[in-house]
Amino acid sequence: MDAPRSEKKLLRVLAGTREDPPPVWLMRQAGRYLPEYRALRERAPNFLDFCFTPHLAAEATLQPIRRFRFDAAILFSDILVVPAALGQPVTFEAGEGPRLDANALAQLRDDLDHGRLAPVYETIGLVKQALAPEVALLGFCGAPWTVATYMVAGRGTPDQAPARKLAYEDPKTFEQLIDRLVEASVGYLVRQLQAGVDAVQIFDTWAGTLPPAQFQRWCVDPVARVVKGVRAAIPDAPIIGFPRGAGTLLPAYVAQTGVTAVSLDWMIDPAFACAQVPARMALQGNLDPLVLRAGGRALDAATDGVVAAFADRPFIFNLGHGILPDTPVANVERMLGRIRTG
Amino acid sequence: MDAPRSEKKLLRVLAGTREDPPPVWLMRQAGRYLPEYRALRERAPNFLDFCFTPHLAAEATLQPIRRFRFDAAILFSDILVVPAALGQPVTFEAGEGPRLDANALAQLRDDLDHGRLAPVYETIGLVKQALAPEVALLGFCGAPWTVATYMVAGRGTPDQAPARKLAYEDPKTFEQLIDRLVEASVGYLVRQLQAGVDAVQIFDTWAGTLPPAQFQRWCVDPVARVVKGVRAAIPDAPIIGFPRGAGTLLPAYVAQTGVTAVSLDWMIDPAFACAQVPARMALQGNLDPLVLRAGGRALDAATDGVVAAFADRPFIFNLGHGILPDTPVANVERMLGRIRTG
Repeated sequence: MDAPRSEKKLLRVLAGTREDPPPVWLMRQAGRYLPEYRALRERAPNFLDFCFTPHLAAEATLQPIRRFRFDAAILFSDILVVPAALGQPVTFEAGEGPRLDANALAQLRDDLDHGRLAPVYETIGLVKQALAPEVALLGFCGAPWTVATYMVAGRGTPDQAPARKLAYEDPKTFEQLIDRLVEASVGYLVRQLQAGVDAVQIFDTWAGTLPPAQFQRWCVDPVARVVKGVRAAIPDAPIIGFPRGAGTLLPAYVAQTGVTAVSLDWMIDPAFACAQVPARMALQGNLDPLVLRAGGRALDAATDGVVAAFADRPFIFNLGHGILPDTPVANVERMLGRIRTG
Repeated sequence: MDAPRSEKKLLRVLAGTREDPPPVWLMRQAGRYLPEYRALRERAPNFLDFCFTPHLAAEATLQPIRRFRFDAAILFSDILVVPAALGQPVTFEAGEGPRLDANALAQLRDDLDHGRLAPVYETIGLVKQALAPEVALLGFCGAPWTVATYMVAGRGTPDQAPARKLAYEDPKTFEQLIDRLVEASVGYLVRQLQAGVDAVQIFDTWAGTLPPAQFQRWCVDPVARVVKGVRAAIPDAPIIGFPRGAGTLLPAYVAQTGVTAVSLDWMIDPAFACAQVPARMALQGNLDPLVLRAGGRALDAATDGVVAAFADRPFIFNLGHGILPDTPVANVERMLGRIRTG
């Protein structure tokens, strides 16, 4: 390799190197399945307050690294801080998920309020000081489409029907919202990178409910613009895309967005992904979060299956979506033992 | 063609012929979006009673044919009549969906109670008498996996976690349930065909939540056994498979199940399906139900897109899932005009 070799295994893989055993981290690794997180969380019952309190968010980010020695820490935050920083009121009801004021869509700010997001950038600084040099720090944002689904519906929905309906019935209005989110996402990711994250992930959790033409317009094109915008400021920024549920549309996403690597959900066929994604591009994923919760022999078999499926290419072990809150910690240990001893 | 040419356009397409304009029917075409259905439904408020009352179920089956001249009628019924006929108590709460007694799983009957299902077979006879000779009649059942998700959870779930968890934690118990459903599905479909349906569709609504190895074991293998069992009794039975959400796993489903044709959801890339499915095998689908609800220019563009995507092969126009209850009837007429005038 010509590029300087990073101390961080995860960054070496993102640069195109195969590492054995593969680096590993888990989506939502800082979260409710950890007793130390649940104890910490009691110190700021309001979820957004917790995200915006640097010493608490930094501690939540670091907890799973101490316990499991993951190869990457991911900033503890939420994709809905972006709508909040665009002026849309956001709250989190315990056990109910997010609530956004959909009536505020017509009065959004033009620019992201970086003052509101300053605690996030401060959190990044605190985590950087505490992390061992071999552990990468990841920042993130939601993809414009996924963030828009919450902004339009005012909450999480099983089928993203409110945003999908608006996009069909009034594509101009919807496009204006997407445009604003593209610009906001670029600004937010650039500031995270400037504050010290090593790489970023763009979460398109609800990409999988769109038919091909809509997937192109509302997922692929906006993410491509976010990637281009970030790279205009920071040319070598490693960017992981996560188009959850992309399925047969993955090749278009990979070819057109310009992401450095792709994170795969648990439904996709690894053989399809390996064949369709260039051999030097890192893949990340894709254990079923439910088998991690189930544990036992099923977990062993599924873990081995994921490791084997991506054995011949740059690969980051992860889940196909976030870890489930009722996952036993012992199951995470069992999985890690299996990955790390090969 | 060597086979006798059917009067029914839909059967000609299932036999491998291209027809222009393509035949069309809609999943859930008999249902709540029709005012005449809502009026009929009031005559038997209990949903299962309605399904099991032949003159009412036959009338519901025929209503959309009279109004829209679809190329196929589909038996008005529900996939959960099978658990009911296996002895599991099933009820439908208004606005809440189905409720099944999950505690009854250990006391299921060995064989399907065809006496309980006799009204279904009687409904088929009534519909056959009333249908014009060019209209096909479709029977159906749920695929073993999809029916099992309701039987295990006791209700519909967003992620099918209860059945997926049981399948991971106790695969032997889950396999016994699947085996019973394979046998029941064979018996049920054979009786429908003997009663007079021209073809059957196997609905695997929740196929899309399984990772590849589980998809193979709980979707592909059981459906292959159902197809084999039906064909042992009725060798030329046309069978449409609907593995909703199969995505990149569609080729395995097509190659291994033995279905006559495949119905596609709206998320799959038509170019992928056309390339992966043998050229003489009919495809069915795959308009986004939400764009039919939205209407207008978006509906025109999406309808044209589906027609164009499958222009070169045997094709049945349909939705990618059931029609939404709040879909305006005028939108269905608009879509049909567009398909039928080319």
